[in-house]
Amino acid sequence: MINIAVLGYGVIGSGVVEVLNTNGDSIAKRAGDRINVKYVLDINDFPGDPIQEKLVKDINIILDDPEVKIVCEHIGGLNPAYSFVKSALLKGKSVVTSNKELVAKYGAELLDIAKERSLNFLFEASVGGGIPIIRPLNQSLTADEIIEITGILNGTTNYILSKMSEEGLDFDTALANAQRLGYAERNPKNDVEGHDACRKIAILSSLAYGMQVDSEDIYTEGITGISDKDFAYAKALDAKIKLLASSIRQDDQVYAMVAPVMIKANHPLYSVNDVFNGIFVRGNVIGDVMFYGSGAGKLPTASAVVADVVDAAKHMGTNIWTIWSSKKLELTDISQVKHRFFVRVSGDANELKDHVRELFGEVEELNAQLQGEYAFITELISEQEMKDKKNTLGGVLSVIRTRF
Amino acid sequence: MINIAVLGYGVIGSGVVEVLNTNGDSIAKRAGDRINVKYVLDINDFPGDPIQEKLVKDINIILDDPEVKIVCEHIGGLNPAYSFVKSALLKGKSVVTSNKELVAKYGAELLDIAKERSLNFLFEASVGGGIPIIRPLNQSLTADEIIEITGILNGTTNYILSKMSEEGLDFDTALANAQRLGYAERNPKNDVEGHDACRKIAILSSLAYGMQVDSEDIYTEGITGISDKDFAYAKALDAKIKLLASSIRQDDQVYAMVAPVMIKANHPLYSVNDVFNGIFVRGNVIGDVMFYGSGAGKLPTASAVVADVVDAAKHMGTNIWTIWSSKKLELTDISQVKHRFFVRVSGDANELKDHVRELFGEVEELNAQLQGEYAFITELISEQEMKDKKNTLGGVLSVIRTRF
Repeated sequence: MINIAVLGYGVIGSGVVEVLNTNGDSIAKRAGDRINVKYVLDINDFPGDPIQEKLVKDINIILDDPEVKIVCEHIGGLNPAYSFVKSALLKGKSVVTSNKELVAKYGAELLDIAKERSLNFLFEASVGGGIPIIRPLNQSLTADEIIEITGILNGTTNYILSKMSEEGLDFDTALANAQRLGYAERNPKNDVEGHDACRKIAILSSLAYGMQVDSEDIYTEGITGISDKDFAYAKALDAKIKLLASSIRQDDQVYAMVAPVMIKANHPLYSVNDVFNGIFVRGNVIGDVMFYGSGAGKLPTASAVVADVVDAAKHMGTNIWTIWSSKKLELTDISQVKHRFFVRVSGDANELKDHVRELFGEVEELNAQLQGEYAFITELISEQEMKDKKNTLGGVLSVIRTRF
Repeated sequence: MINIAVLGYGVIGSGVVEVLNTNGDSIAKRAGDRINVKYVLDINDFPGDPIQEKLVKDINIILDDPEVKIVCEHIGGLNPAYSFVKSALLKGKSVVTSNKELVAKYGAELLDIAKERSLNFLFEASVGGGIPIIRPLNQSLTADEIIEITGILNGTTNYILSKMSEEGLDFDTALANAQRLGYAERNPKNDVEGHDACRKIAILSSLAYGMQVDSEDIYTEGITGISDKDFAYAKALDAKIKLLASSIRQDDQVYAMVAPVMIKANHPLYSVNDVFNGIFVRGNVIGDVMFYGSGAGKLPTASAVVADVVDAAKHMGTNIWTIWSSKKLELTDISQVKHRFFVRVSGDANELKDHVRELFGEVEELNAQLQGEYAFITELISEQEMKDKKNTLGGVLSVIRTRF
């Protein structure tokens, strides 16, 4: 029997207990031994839930119990998660976490501590919910130099954008629907402003390049500025607008960004809709691969956590090697990165036509039957050029990068 | 330095050497040591190729050299691949293979030999080319009971079906095009009759259920009977016809089949086109996940092989546990499996209408403006019912299962 402790009995923590109960037999077969939840740490009580008898409020009970071999952290946030996880490792316990904030910030340090002690620090559930992506990056794509990772990494924003696209809703209505269905939090800032996706692409980039990519360094733009009018043009183009989190290596430089992007049906992420996530990876020998699935949700995320528990159980006393040095990877400034930009300008189309061509040269003119505005797609130009020309042009209603 | 030997210097074997040359530095970092190709075994000579000096014709040179720690087998077929691989394991060498025939037939036995000797027998490249699927099934989806695996596992047939769908080609023309482009072999039987996909779903099913699934037991239907007229109806339905290899668990029974199936845009495999492969997996807690990428090709397949070599190098002296017992899994007879069937019948539509309704009850009538035939989709009925009614009806031009 392998004893574990679950920190935090919220959505994911209770999911972990549920998965272990549901599939206990097959999990035991794969882990080589039965997994037993010895403690659950939570500040709340759960009267009537059988978990109540395993509930503790003091982390030291868990840390000081040598029988606990694996700790699953699902408290979220940095404090007290960071100190609990670090202490657990220092006490000789492997740790599994779903906490992307913790992993993005302290992943390198915690992996180091685990390695020194022949323990494991595993975090499959921190990115893409149940989708296997951390382990494939770490163990399957080892023959490749990763050239690009582009993901739809946030289910909430993908749901909102899907509904705006399919049902012609405006942003506020789509967000309100998502909140009503429990897909968006009451304070949706973290999701809709791109911070959640940003932390996840920081984790994937750190693993892909083996060095610390700080989420603060990643250019991040959310979806709050996307309107139903943008979607009218997207529809006319047979395109979709997706919140893409990308990190791309060009020559020996890496740039990363989170931003809404228009893509067409030839992009593998085009058909990743609703709350689903998709992660597209391009390697220099494998070519293009994509991983798709539920990016969030109680059971899918818990499935990833328990798979990590199984791996930790199978590797008792052996560190699974992960290359993620604490040395910082300096990202390239995005100002020279090029895209074709979709641009909407307020004003009379006939009057704007010539002015736009003077400024941008040849453009692809768009028509979505909307009055009082003019829309076009530029040739391939840099972020800096786009910024400068936007200022010169004036009256710009929206700018969205495209991948076509 | 870790010495390896490559058996077979064809497309994949030479790809393995190329990948090791191209990404040698990063591979060394991940494997913990430099990977050196000490020998290549091939019956041919390669004058002018630097590999010539490593070429041997006698397997015993490799088997008897204790410096060789890992053997990569890319000869294909069962003989002599099976005896070479088995001998290598018995001589204490880990083995990596891309040979699906070998793995489907002898996977359980070879895994056992490897386990007993703390070696590894790895075969990521045997299914889905470069797509990570074996390792995710084995190590990432361990918290789940697998309910379904459905894959587009053969690039040749997917290319042919894609071209028939997009360009309205008939089967023979699409096949000829595929042969001209090198996507289909001169003797395409193995691909177009579904045998290749059948072996691959046998491997995936064996891993998912931990028992031996014999490919001979799997109902297999190829795409040679699919015509441009079938695609005319598919188009009218916004559907695609794909060669799907499935294994599905219902209650405690598993059935498996390889057959052309009509799917619509709501199925994750709908947008897997051309030579790409996609593997859809449904677990009882993770829900639906999909893996997508190049299912064949020199470098993608070699990428998977080299990733296995890296894993074997990292696990020198430790067996990576894989549950695949040699105990045979008895598949359920498919006669009670239910689908909605697409059916085309020769004759006058008006005359057939009533007869079809008498026989099938309510059906969905289809119209693709084709003269002299009548087409419809049945309600959900069993394979046996469909077979019986087909015989009663007479004049049936085609029957294709649908997933909608």
